Amino acid sequence: MQYKFSPIAIVHSPFTEKFGIPRQPGLVEGAVAELELLAPYDDIDTCRGLEQFSHLWILFVFHQHLDKWQATVRPPRLGGNAKVGVFASRSSYRPNPIGMSVVENLGVSQREGKTIIRISGGDMLDGTPVLDIKPYITYADAIPQANSGYAQSRPEITLHVEFSAASEARLTELIANYPGIRELITQLISFDPRPAYQNDPQKSYAMRLYTFDIKFRVIDSTAHILSIE
Amino acid sequence: MQYKFSPIAIVHSPFTEKFGIPRQPGLVEGAVAELELLAPYDDIDTCRGLEQFSHLWILFVFHQHLDKWQATVRPPRLGGNAKVGVFASRSSYRPNPIGMSVVENLGVSQREGKTIIRISGGDMLDGTPVLDIKPYITYADAIPQANSGYAQSRPEITLHVEFSAASEARLTELIANYPGIRELITQLISFDPRPAYQNDPQKSYAMRLYTFDIKFRVIDSTAHILSIE
Repeated sequence: MQYKFSPIAIVHSPFTEKFGIPRQPGLVEGAVAELELLAPYDDIDTCRGLEQFSHLWILFVFHQHLDKWQATVRPPRLGGNAKVGVFASRSSYRPNPIGMSVVENLGVSQREGKTIIRISGGDMLDGTPVLDIKPYITYADAIPQANSGYAQSRPEITLHVEFSAASEARLTELIANYPGIRELITQLISFDPRPAYQNDPQKSYAMRLYTFDIKFRVIDSTAHILSIE
Repeated sequence: MQYKFSPIAIVHSPFTEKFGIPRQPGLVEGAVAELELLAPYDDIDTCRGLEQFSHLWILFVFHQHLDKWQATVRPPRLGGNAKVGVFASRSSYRPNPIGMSVVENLGVSQREGKTIIRISGGDMLDGTPVLDIKPYITYADAIPQANSGYAQSRPEITLHVEFSAASEARLTELIANYPGIRELITQLISFDPRPAYQNDPQKSYAMRLYTFDIKFRVIDSTAHILSIE
């Protein structure tokens, strides 16, 4: 038995590559994205009343990870060296690669004939196919007393972020078209996107955001943004 | 573009018909159900570490509602006479009929070669195909301050439930095989499953649970359980 689903929307987000994406939604508020509804679901009537809800669930496809599941995965939270069952993880490598994220609802609008929902706090790659949008129902969805095992606590900000003179200059040029890009880079890198146990101060990393490569190096607890290309 | 998903599990629940099912999960704790993992996903390794999580997300197919979506729906919460957009509702009539419910995790076990996850608080029909099981991650999923518009408050218990002598006698016979059935019937009917605006004390309703028809009538604020057949 198989069920077939077609995307009802597509994500436009700053995240053009997986490296550096927040590991859960809600961590990086600076990450504003847009959901563009696709025909025949783009009738604005489908969103009537959506403004009443401060938060939304987005169900989406991990479209880069089709057909790659394994029974166990190594969550980054466990340092990458302990295995848990795939159903005890939020890994994107799943039997059915469906993701779900709660995001803040910034409003619905129509632009150039398109119906657009603006959201913040998402963790979805640019181009992600969206299967469903649902209102967040606090009394049913919020269980603050739930025990979340190895993922009980919010990931901590571990890095202080400093920009080089060259990257500061580049930011000044970009700010008009990408307002908030400085805060976004700072927030993303402060969570330390490096793979677990990598701590080589000589090594430079590149995080892709929009069409830019953000190069950085980590020395002690400070991330130095080297360049924005 | 279409994505194809195969069920990873099937639900065994007391709810054999839609009438009377709780309108959201978490309302009726007496509703214990089982998820039977399906091959090739039934390797118990897929659930390793699941015991660390008190609550789980179940993503499932509203399999009785395929291909029946409309742009707007009439949520029962609004008395059935106000329309909201389908994406501003949790209606089961959706473009992609995927449901998601948070349930309590009662544990994983193996029985007769099957891998079973026991859950409570679910609102899924017996036979529901499950697409995914994910751990509830409190820091990401619980937003107690979210504004949920027309569905902000928990539905209230509105009916007092009384059992007739005949139904009490039947319960005594059933209790050995269906422990908790009395509490389950009481909880379900106390939320008043009747369609909005129906208030005819002469009319009797039948709710199907397991293989039984539970007949009841409502007079003022009391539901009288007439028979369990």
